[in-house]
Amino acid sequence: VVEPSTVTAVVNTGDDVVLHGLHVSPDLDTVTYTLAGAVNPETGWGLAGESWGVMDALSRFNAPAGSAAAMTWFRLGDRDLATHLYRTQRLQEGAPLSKVTSEITAAWNVAVRVLPMTDDPVETRVTVAGEGEIGFQDYFVARRHSVPVEEVRFAGSVTARPAPGVLDGIATAAVAVVCPSNPIVSIAPIRAVPGLEVALVARRNDTVAVSPIVAGEALKGPAARLMEELGYEASAVGVARLYAPIAATLVVDEADRDLAPAVEREGVRCVVAPTIMSDPEAAAALARTVLESAGPAEP
Amino acid sequence: VVEPSTVTAVVNTGDDVVLHGLHVSPDLDTVTYTLAGAVNPETGWGLAGESWGVMDALSRFNAPAGSAAAMTWFRLGDRDLATHLYRTQRLQEGAPLSKVTSEITAAWNVAVRVLPMTDDPVETRVTVAGEGEIGFQDYFVARRHSVPVEEVRFAGSVTARPAPGVLDGIATAAVAVVCPSNPIVSIAPIRAVPGLEVALVARRNDTVAVSPIVAGEALKGPAARLMEELGYEASAVGVARLYAPIAATLVVDEADRDLAPAVEREGVRCVVAPTIMSDPEAAAALARTVLESAGPAEP
Repeated sequence: VVEPSTVTAVVNTGDDVVLHGLHVSPDLDTVTYTLAGAVNPETGWGLAGESWGVMDALSRFNAPAGSAAAMTWFRLGDRDLATHLYRTQRLQEGAPLSKVTSEITAAWNVAVRVLPMTDDPVETRVTVAGEGEIGFQDYFVARRHSVPVEEVRFAGSVTARPAPGVLDGIATAAVAVVCPSNPIVSIAPIRAVPGLEVALVARRNDTVAVSPIVAGEALKGPAARLMEELGYEASAVGVARLYAPIAATLVVDEADRDLAPAVEREGVRCVVAPTIMSDPEAAAALARTVLESAGPAEP
Repeated sequence: VVEPSTVTAVVNTGDDVVLHGLHVSPDLDTVTYTLAGAVNPETGWGLAGESWGVMDALSRFNAPAGSAAAMTWFRLGDRDLATHLYRTQRLQEGAPLSKVTSEITAAWNVAVRVLPMTDDPVETRVTVAGEGEIGFQDYFVARRHSVPVEEVRFAGSVTARPAPGVLDGIATAAVAVVCPSNPIVSIAPIRAVPGLEVALVARRNDTVAVSPIVAGEALKGPAARLMEELGYEASAVGVARLYAPIAATLVVDEADRDLAPAVEREGVRCVVAPTIMSDPEAAAALARTVLESAGPAEP
């Protein structure tokens, strides 16, 4: 739909985690592998045709109680591990994450400019009812996001700075797109980096969001449940309320056509279109819809 | 020859290195894998039947000049990497290396008690003529130990403490054995840990060393070349001079039978026996010889 080299993707790093000493950036890697055409199509993360020699061997160990040393619930495939080894070494050599990410995307021949939201450490922390605060991967992977959440915060975000290129990318983009991702744990951490929200607000008229909630449910993941637990309606209307400050336009799925008036009452132009990216053609059609939809909401 | 659970192996950690953020302990792992019967018999290190998915994938990356991020000269097999992931996580959780090592050997069903010489960081550093000081793996693996060495030192050894069990193990052993290893870069770092040399000297009459030099050459590795470069004769006599302070007895190979008088002039009883461990029977015979040889040198 557009020349990849003209696209900048600003990606959440609040899910980043150090496992076995390795710096893992799940969202950056998923974006990179997806753009490289190498992602595992069945899981939506990791690499297609992956092997699991390291994880299988790790199962030999019996770590003491409380240790994560023999942890295999966070599955790191062999080829994926190479990315983590590379990233970890470069970070320890002092390279910022944005530089390392550009090296990794270059190795995968990805033309889209993939930027972490920040080079500074930001950590998504989730307060689980009856359990207290835990790390994001503990919540998302170990507990399969099936526990009640009371609060989400982004530790470190107060002092984080946008990575090089992020503010310029937003300021100079023809259209800014808030992709159909989790508003609470994937988009909110980006908005929480100081300067990012202001930059997005300044481009509100050129910003188009796509609702990740279709007919009251997320296509995958805990977006709907999290929105409800944190006081938002789990619907396109709830999404509109969350994104109204930064996006003049919200694309909602045809299944939510009836919600369009309620979405517009949130001060957001509502565009109804097929939003489920079931194949590349559907994804391309959605991309065209999004790009054509940009513009100020009617008063 | 003896019940494995009665044996304590004190192992050099001066070769330990952090690669890609992972704590690699080459000597501990070689001892563990060998005792587990899992070592690669062709290389003498790493695991038999190893797979290389991670290293192969790492070759995708082109690290900038000066970076070790895409370094594949230090080959880390997939199953071996699981050991490094486990060790790194446990060390980051605060477990001392000796504790982690006991967990790893337990996972491999190794009954011999394998102890690192110290839980503290000690780093073997090698000064190469015309190049300056480099790390041990840079010397040993990257340069294949085929460069002239001017000096070897063990950074951190001044403040290192023997790992728990090491001094007791030496003090209470029926026989202490200095295995046929490299006197300069495998045995000397152990001797350099404060308290170790004194403990060995105290057991001199019960300590038997086996010469790693046979007919003027090391069976493998740079022992002969290093001894010469650092001013020792590359022979069983040179070995006797190096070990005279700690071992009353030196076992030399039958090929060096003629050197026995010169060895004894170093104040060391010389035992001549087959020392090449070409198969388990030969190794067992050497072990028996060593155990039977212990005792004070004649004046």
